[in-house]
Amino acid sequence: MPVVVTKVERPDVVVVEGLGRAGVATVHEAQGRRGLMSNRMRPVWHGARMAGTAVTISSPPGDNWMVHVAIEQIRPGDVLVLAPTSPCGDGYFGDLLATSAMARGCRGLVIDAGVRDVADLEAMGFPVWSTSISAQGTVKATLGSVNVPIVCAGAAVEAGDVVVADFDGVCVVKRAEAADVLAGAEKRLAAEESKRKRLAAGELGLDIYGMREELAKRGLKYV
Amino acid sequence: MPVVVTKVERPDVVVVEGLGRAGVATVHEAQGRRGLMSNRMRPVWHGARMAGTAVTISSPPGDNWMVHVAIEQIRPGDVLVLAPTSPCGDGYFGDLLATSAMARGCRGLVIDAGVRDVADLEAMGFPVWSTSISAQGTVKATLGSVNVPIVCAGAAVEAGDVVVADFDGVCVVKRAEAADVLAGAEKRLAAEESKRKRLAAGELGLDIYGMREELAKRGLKYV
Amino acid sequence: MPVVVTKVERPDVVVVEGLGRAGVATVHEAQGRRGLMSNRMRPVWHGARMAGTAVTISSPPGDNWMVHVAIEQIRPGDVLVLAPTSPCGDGYFGDLLATSAMARGCRGLVIDAGVRDVADLEAMGFPVWSTSISAQGTVKATLGSVNVPIVCAGAAVEAGDVVVADFDGVCVVKRAEAADVLAGAEKRLAAEESKRKRLAAGELGLDIYGMREELAKRGLKYV
Amino acid sequence: MPVVVTKVERPDVVVVEGLGRAGVATVHEAQGRRGLMSNRMRPVWHGARMAGTAVTISSPPGDNWMVHVAIEQIRPGDVLVLAPTSPCGDGYFGDLLATSAMARGCRGLVIDAGVRDVADLEAMGFPVWSTSISAQGTVKATLGSVNVPIVCAGAAVEAGDVVVADFDGVCVVKRAEAADVLAGAEKRLAAEESKRKRLAAGELGLDIYGMREELAKRGLKYV
Amino acid sequence: MPVVVTKVERPDVVVVEGLGRAGVATVHEAQGRRGLMSNRMRPVWHGARMAGTAVTISSPPGDNWMVHVAIEQIRPGDVLVLAPTSPCGDGYFGDLLATSAMARGCRGLVIDAGVRDVADLEAMGFPVWSTSISAQGTVKATLGSVNVPIVCAGAAVEAGDVVVADFDGVCVVKRAEAADVLAGAEKRLAAEESKRKRLAAGELGLDIYGMREELAKRGLKYV
Amino acid sequence: MPVVVTKVERPDVVVVEGLGRAGVATVHEAQGRRGLMSNRMRPVWHGARMAGTAVTISSPPGDNWMVHVAIEQIRPGDVLVLAPTSPCGDGYFGDLLATSAMARGCRGLVIDAGVRDVADLEAMGFPVWSTSISAQGTVKATLGSVNVPIVCAGAAVEAGDVVVADFDGVCVVKRAEAADVLAGAEKRLAAEESKRKRLAAGELGLDIYGMREELAKRGLKYV
Repeated sequence: MPVVVTKVERPDVVVVEGLGRAGVATVHEAQGRRGLMSNRMRPVWHGARMAGTAVTISSPPGDNWMVHVAIEQIRPGDVLVLAPTSPCGDGYFGDLLATSAMARGCRGLVIDAGVRDVADLEAMGFPVWSTSISAQGTVKATLGSVNVPIVCAGAAVEAGDVVVADFDGVCVVKRAEAADVLAGAEKRLAAEESKRKRLAAGELGLDIYGMREELAKRGLKYV
Repeated sequence: MPVVVTKVERPDVVVVEGLGRAGVATVHEAQGRRGLMSNRMRPVWHGARMAGTAVTISSPPGDNWMVHVAIEQIRPGDVLVLAPTSPCGDGYFGDLLATSAMARGCRGLVIDAGVRDVADLEAMGFPVWSTSISAQGTVKATLGSVNVPIVCAGAAVEAGDVVVADFDGVCVVKRAEAADVLAGAEKRLAAEESKRKRLAAGELGLDIYGMREELAKRGLKYV
Repeated sequence: MPVVVTKVERPDVVVVEGLGRAGVATVHEAQGRRGLMSNRMRPVWHGARMAGTAVTISSPPGDNWMVHVAIEQIRPGDVLVLAPTSPCGDGYFGDLLATSAMARGCRGLVIDAGVRDVADLEAMGFPVWSTSISAQGTVKATLGSVNVPIVCAGAAVEAGDVVVADFDGVCVVKRAEAADVLAGAEKRLAAEESKRKRLAAGELGLDIYGMREELAKRGLKYV
Repeated sequence: MPVVVTKVERPDVVVVEGLGRAGVATVHEAQGRRGLMSNRMRPVWHGARMAGTAVTISSPPGDNWMVHVAIEQIRPGDVLVLAPTSPCGDGYFGDLLATSAMARGCRGLVIDAGVRDVADLEAMGFPVWSTSISAQGTVKATLGSVNVPIVCAGAAVEAGDVVVADFDGVCVVKRAEAADVLAGAEKRLAAEESKRKRLAAGELGLDIYGMREELAKRGLKYV
Repeated sequence: MPVVVTKVERPDVVVVEGLGRAGVATVHEAQGRRGLMSNRMRPVWHGARMAGTAVTISSPPGDNWMVHVAIEQIRPGDVLVLAPTSPCGDGYFGDLLATSAMARGCRGLVIDAGVRDVADLEAMGFPVWSTSISAQGTVKATLGSVNVPIVCAGAAVEAGDVVVADFDGVCVVKRAEAADVLAGAEKRLAAEESKRKRLAAGELGLDIYGMREELAKRGLKYV
Repeated sequence: MPVVVTKVERPDVVVVEGLGRAGVATVHEAQGRRGLMSNRMRPVWHGARMAGTAVTISSPPGDNWMVHVAIEQIRPGDVLVLAPTSPCGDGYFGDLLATSAMARGCRGLVIDAGVRDVADLEAMGFPVWSTSISAQGTVKATLGSVNVPIVCAGAAVEAGDVVVADFDGVCVVKRAEAADVLAGAEKRLAAEESKRKRLAAGELGLDIYGMREELAKRGLKYV
């Protein structure tokens, strides 16, 4: 069953970049609160943010052979998304693989496992979200698959989906929905701007959102 | 039973600021090692520290309606302290609520749940201690209470208690004990200063604290 | 049974420093992937790295009496390595003990428990790897041992072993094997340098490592 | 500050037993979903259930001296409730202490720490809810307090409060509210009985609770 | 977006029952080690095992409204599979809902959240796999969806998929693949039978599987 | 470096069986509270207890090849003790391997990883302590070692050490110390017997152990 899917449809780069600018929290809201990975998934260095199209990797625990296979499938603007077939915190990825991935135009890595050489990754400016940091190396002994559907940190991901990541976490947007989600995200950002000004001026959310009546009706008492 | 207590006694601001300067570890010692929250409670950005008086929030899981209610109760120098009624890591609080809270004079947030827009919170200089970072939004569907006694990350907190937070964690000081605890903390800081000098000069704790005799009596052997 | 072993053989300082330059991931590989501590062990401040020879401490939970005893045993270039006799996240160590340890030439601390005064530790430049950050103080009531074999965060450590620590974690090298491991690490670093250049130039790991044939033989299909 | 409060008011035994018959889930609902301990708190043997009045213990980590002090304060119908002053999983309590507690009329133990001799505890029929099972013994070196207010596994407990425990967890009822909560619980049990019959006969909750209209109004679509 | 899909294709009941007899470990192997839920998912009572077709539920955290909706969609032989939209351990399901589900022919529940009334569930013989046991009740305030694709405890599940559960965990088989997986599972069981006899007679796996040569070739040394 | 040590010295079987009768808590105390594994290590079925001599296995994550190698090294009365070289919860061991191990006289398994076919293991009466239960199978691709020193769940173990396990956990006794530890354990059991009688008769630990004076001296107040 090990397979590499070589043909992947990708959404328009303008859409991907728009989603990246909107950020994880806004994108997640704009698509109806779907697609968020677990909060175990954290950036390995401070300040990282990225958006790209997924090249997916399904790998055995403690085995990074398929990462080498996946790197050949990278097109500029892609990100690698790896889920082990059973829970594993080992360091699948370090500075050599990052060097290779960057040379192919890769924008970053999302991995439900560990990475190493983290100081180098930060110095190189290669963004990574992982669920572990570990110097523990992996073997190259068992096949996996590339660009098949995976579940990564609780979110379903297919090759060509958009992956948005920042300090708030990682969110996946289905390829076919990406343009619509961007439109929703931009509308949301615009609406937030006016609210931010009113709140900064001291107006209360209770008044802006007209909550007082409903709170009273439900029985909230002030004592 | 949902209720908002509007009248809260607060300790003297000079005491609050003194406790803030002393820091969490010293304050915790000075009050007999009580009031420390769980070490799951961590600052969401590096360098944050604060002290303030608690406005408490008891909220259902995944529901931040009461945060809006609580913000109206903030007086300058207050901090928000939120405990969900069952464990939840969702993002109850982001940049809009922080904007609103800051406009009311709020000094920060302590939350046994998640926050989002963390890069914005850092840029705004709004300090937050949380047990989760998550883009997952919340609903506004069920009532909770404001300024009632809560248990937050293992510590009992009442409205008007002093909350001290820095990189070492979060400690709660009962309102009525705040002045005494400050006095103890300052005495402690002074005593530490002279010890620090002797230790820096190479003197040993074994000698400064006179431990050698007791260690021998208990049976410690050097081989 | 509480005992302090005062005579510890230490490896050549040149070897220790060489291992420190190689870093945790390389050293761990060079010694056959042994000696790595759990990934629960993390640096308490960003950018810390160190290498030194172990002074080991076996301490009761919530009791740091033996740290004072251990500091007297420090020789310049040593690091403290503490394992509690049962799991504990309390703050065994803060700025006063760090001041004392630094005055003795100590290069850092590795502790399967908590530390406090972390902002001070960072300001002092005293590197610490711990499994917890907590303001919770400890008592001085029960004896433990110094420089006996311990298990710290899953790794066996003896006094005089080399401890290498950086952002990737903490690795222990047996004293008697340190020179050989350094030789292996340096060979490894040299080999990586040429691979890094080829990968940066866009060559694929699939080709550099000659993986294509074996992948096909195992049955990997491209579709 | 170490103190033993010897005078504790206890609620009527009939109320305590009624709450025990109602069980944790019903009692928790009947008092407005307050007082539930964390789900880390589990029975150490299958089938255990109990209700009793709390004798509280605040103990240092890894130190069970105060358990001996607390046992003298037990009146028939009491249960011991222990919270360590910092997180600890050690075995504070085993068959000897259980023998002693039972001889005083103790109905069980709730402990945010560990117990040991669990096979004996089961054979003796002494019910225990704990957050750990561990053979690790404790010392008798540092004082704590008995019958002071504590926070145990996230719930505030005072001496004389009612503690109800079964396979669903542990719930605390304030002494002064116990009779009212019992009345509410009994009303709730009666109401459930008729619903159970209708549901068993195949009627749907959608119809019994009249949910269809509200679901449609909120926009639920059947496709 | 909240939706209830009312038309679900289900596999042949003979296939479902065959997969149930084979058990989780065998089924998981037979389908190429895919579809296994996280090991956080455990049976709430000892001895439970089941197989059925999935009715899926996507529910907000702490809100079980959709369970009532889902129960109407149950056909005999179905099992409920619930994933909250963000992590939650509350007790979504107890004896009343179990009574209702059983009356509709439901064979059990798999839930990445909590259940309560567990002693009753055991007495009723209603099998449940959950990631939490908690008396904490839920609200009925926010819509979710029924019979949409979900990710439950790390496994993707669609309505009509086969769910097999026993003491080893929970495994999901795609509806379209169920017959093939059953054929593979039965072949596997037959092959294991003969191996079991040889191993019981004292023959070694090293010999049965012919491993000695490969071990030697790889460099395993006996000393 | 992969190696199988074929010559293992084992302690007297009478000593091993005596330690088994004493049980984990008593043995752990009798050897000065050393050698206890983490409380993550739990029996997979209720009522299991065992004592035996260790055959140790160091295995890569997700790879159980070395278990087959180890089984050949079993002598009657041995137990298998497996530690993966990095954290892994996969099911390394099931009913076929248990059948083979039992045929060689193996008394049980202690594994810092997962097992499967747990219902079968219980039916066969083969005792297992593990840190995970998982149907996830493993590969046979990478060598490890047998009968080398390992760290398993926080305890150092060498081939030929005595492993005692019951409901309280797992404790390791060094081969050379086994007879002495047994002597201490038996003395301890005898002493406990008389205390148990006095406590059952209602005498207090405060009096039996003469604690009242020391408690008063330390400042314990009764109020």
